[in-house]
Amino acid sequence: MNGAEILVKTAVESGVKLCFANAGTTELPIVAALDKIKGIRAVLGLFEGVCTGAADGYGRMTSTPAMALLHLGPGLANGIANLHNARRARSPVLTLIGEHATWHRQNDPPLAMDIEGLARAISPWVRTSLSPGTLSQDMAEAVRETALGRVSFLIAASDLQQAEMADAAVAGSPFAFDPVDGEAVERAARLLGGNRRTALILGGRALGERGLGEAARVRAAAGCDLLTDSFFPASMERGGPMPAVRRLPYFPESALDVLAPYTAAVLAGAHEPVTFFGYPGVPGRLLREGQERVSLCAGGQDEVAALRALADALDGPSAKGSGQDHSAAQHRPGLPSGRLTPEKVCLTLAALQPEGAIIVDEGLTTAFDYYGFSAGSPRHSLLTIAGGAIGYGMPCALGAALACPDRTVIDLQADGSALYTVQALWTEAREALPITTLICSNRSYRILEMELSRSGAGALGPAAKALTSLSPPAIDWVALGRGFGVASVAVDTVEGLAREMGRAFAEGGPHLIEMRL
Amino acid sequence: MNGAEILVKTAVESGVKLCFANAGTTELPIVAALDKIKGIRAVLGLFEGVCTGAADGYGRMTSTPAMALLHLGPGLANGIANLHNARRARSPVLTLIGEHATWHRQNDPPLAMDIEGLARAISPWVRTSLSPGTLSQDMAEAVRETALGRVSFLIAASDLQQAEMADAAVAGSPFAFDPVDGEAVERAARLLGGNRRTALILGGRALGERGLGEAARVRAAAGCDLLTDSFFPASMERGGPMPAVRRLPYFPESALDVLAPYTAAVLAGAHEPVTFFGYPGVPGRLLREGQERVSLCAGGQDEVAALRALADALDGPSAKGSGQDHSAAQHRPGLPSGRLTPEKVCLTLAALQPEGAIIVDEGLTTAFDYYGFSAGSPRHSLLTIAGGAIGYGMPCALGAALACPDRTVIDLQADGSALYTVQALWTEAREALPITTLICSNRSYRILEMELSRSGAGALGPAAKALTSLSPPAIDWVALGRGFGVASVAVDTVEGLAREMGRAFAEGGPHLIEMRL
Repeated sequence: MNGAEILVKTAVESGVKLCFANAGTTELPIVAALDKIKGIRAVLGLFEGVCTGAADGYGRMTSTPAMALLHLGPGLANGIANLHNARRARSPVLTLIGEHATWHRQNDPPLAMDIEGLARAISPWVRTSLSPGTLSQDMAEAVRETALGRVSFLIAASDLQQAEMADAAVAGSPFAFDPVDGEAVERAARLLGGNRRTALILGGRALGERGLGEAARVRAAAGCDLLTDSFFPASMERGGPMPAVRRLPYFPESALDVLAPYTAAVLAGAHEPVTFFGYPGVPGRLLREGQERVSLCAGGQDEVAALRALADALDGPSAKGSGQDHSAAQHRPGLPSGRLTPEKVCLTLAALQPEGAIIVDEGLTTAFDYYGFSAGSPRHSLLTIAGGAIGYGMPCALGAALACPDRTVIDLQADGSALYTVQALWTEAREALPITTLICSNRSYRILEMELSRSGAGALGPAAKALTSLSPPAIDWVALGRGFGVASVAVDTVEGLAREMGRAFAEGGPHLIEMRL
Repeated sequence: MNGAEILVKTAVESGVKLCFANAGTTELPIVAALDKIKGIRAVLGLFEGVCTGAADGYGRMTSTPAMALLHLGPGLANGIANLHNARRARSPVLTLIGEHATWHRQNDPPLAMDIEGLARAISPWVRTSLSPGTLSQDMAEAVRETALGRVSFLIAASDLQQAEMADAAVAGSPFAFDPVDGEAVERAARLLGGNRRTALILGGRALGERGLGEAARVRAAAGCDLLTDSFFPASMERGGPMPAVRRLPYFPESALDVLAPYTAAVLAGAHEPVTFFGYPGVPGRLLREGQERVSLCAGGQDEVAALRALADALDGPSAKGSGQDHSAAQHRPGLPSGRLTPEKVCLTLAALQPEGAIIVDEGLTTAFDYYGFSAGSPRHSLLTIAGGAIGYGMPCALGAALACPDRTVIDLQADGSALYTVQALWTEAREALPITTLICSNRSYRILEMELSRSGAGALGPAAKALTSLSPPAIDWVALGRGFGVASVAVDTVEGLAREMGRAFAEGGPHLIEMRL
């Protein structure tokens, strides 16, 4: 068994099932090992940002890591933006990178870069294996690190991958969360038990099915409100019987308005809410000085267990029956009609999305209304752009579809962002995945036009126009989709969109619908 | 005048004329300043790798920096791979990055990253401006740094950009090379004046028109051979009256064979040749222990001036008349015929490329023969993938076309690599640039198949096949090109290719020709 084979064997035995890869010469022993050691499926991405974004999507849906296999520093560089999203999503992602042979690295060949330096921008867990004998342990630790909702980086030189090993023991990667912080739970219980108007602010796995079940118990016992910790939660369960959670607005003035009435906040798996950008004259932190706050758990702890302990401490009702949010109307909106607008796009999707759908939302300005409209839609998962690095949507949809092969995936996708990682469409086609991509084709970076107008810049000059408009020429999304092998159509009315969505869901496989706005 | 305006004004006065940008909210004051302060043209790239690769191409052709304006850490991350190529090409590139407001950075908002950490993987010159008062000096120094053939990074927080300044003096950026190292020149002259068989190994600006003129004088005086320092020179002048330069082969065995006969080597603007990857049993450094070597100049020196001093020391003939390489046949190849093969693609291009063309070569395995075939083509510039990070070709062609508006640009482009930064096609269309992209559509990462076969891996298993083949589905390049607004056709014969190349050159504007191999 060689070094590459022990790497793959360790990953397999640690539960890794999928590898999103764009390998080069220095990863070829690993590619060969993926054939020799069974258990990991290899999926090609035509650009590393596709691979890392897909690993993020897979991790968000399964809470187990997929492997992203990347080529040297440049391959890692191309994948960093979506690893940043994964980091902010606290998604488990195992990043494996080949490096030049140990004896060749000093010759500074053309592709040589500071791989560790790049990786450290994402994660504190960056390891370059130093000998074939440590490869298995290094891989096991890399996998274990991801269980904390982190991106880990393992760098393995090509000669270590090629080294034949006599003694090839496979290391294990047992993992356990740190115990719940009983004191923090007690403080939170006291806060919630008092007379304060309290926000239970949820993030991370607290927005998953089990976390929300416990949060609903807390709410039932204490009468608090449930909120997300940002406008861009990594993933959450919604609709059907799931409890309604208020999403923090994007623009800071509205977010401040939402949070103003509370005298206290309990944070569960959540960061203290901050504004997305710093605006002159607007505070960057959204909770005021006077608002009491308790953080229920820290890094290595399990937010679900912490919420359960809190619900127990408050004598919350059993999980069954406490979830249903009877205050929210449990109905989908009706279908609108006529020419598509952003609002009608959101209404149509909320009206037609099938039960169990995974909604990947990178619709940005077009999708602002979707969250509210879909509160009464059937049970679904919602994924958003946790780290704000555009180009996450298509890859994330890819990873989610491979993670959950029986579910329909719908990517509500801004056009400007879609162009960052548009190559993902090809992998959708190769793997015949049931993903429907709804391109919000407004032919501009609309958010920048909004921000320019917010800043009081007045009429746009030629540079501002050139840098915010995606037309001319208008991008022909139908041509792009077909070029990558995805069935593609364009629509400009609700009726057309509804018809094409119905067809896409019924047919299965990948579809792209350009919604001309 | 605000901070953003002083940044732009300083850049204008330092000679910056072009800005390839994909800006976000934290760069909007700079966008507005590009409208207010005249002198820099703003060109939108739909992905940051397009912007940085275009800045590289512009820098290679003009030896002056274009600005790449990028959004925070994720924007920089997306542009790093092509900045790596720029670094290896010693191309002047000015990178300007917006950062969160200084007071907001500590709140760790979603898009926050270690921008400096990322930038340091590319350049030792990374500066975060600390106050509005230093912005002009910081910009001037950033521009000056690029004159050394480096990538510089200036990071400016949004509140500094917005700050109004009473005293807005613009700093200058004078630059001068370090003096020529007379001792090194003497040592080189002694080596060349003796009886040794000597290789004059050229890199950087030594492969430009003036450098090659001086190198030809040295050759005429000393009878040495001219070689490139790697298979991937950043840019060189070729054809017509330019002296013939032997290109170092890609695979190490052939490169060792080429270098074996020499007893000495003089390096001018060149690195000591190394193999692209480290192969078991093959040395990583291509010059042997016993081969004497002299490096003519170091980092801050001018390789052209050093070569001139060397030619003078050797009493080389005047530049006029010494360049012509009478030993090489000064004829283009004739047109082949029939079904396209990699060899016929190269012959056809060499036979038809117009005088003064800029050839961007990212054809990889398809283009292996092009260099030899085009030795007798009319005068042209050749750019190659200096850093080995794929996805440089289309952006580099874009930058070259904007740098040299009167010249035809031809991008001989591998399909796998093209997909990395395919968004560049759109900017070609928007700017109506005379770029003809020749897609080498072999539907595989052929270089990896070759490397797998070199390594004796035997028949490819399913993972190796999945990770090296770009089909199924076959990418429809005609659809992709049209989707981005570029006139596109597919051909599979020499006759078809010749016809479409003729049409593209005659019509001007961007064209894509998918060459189905």
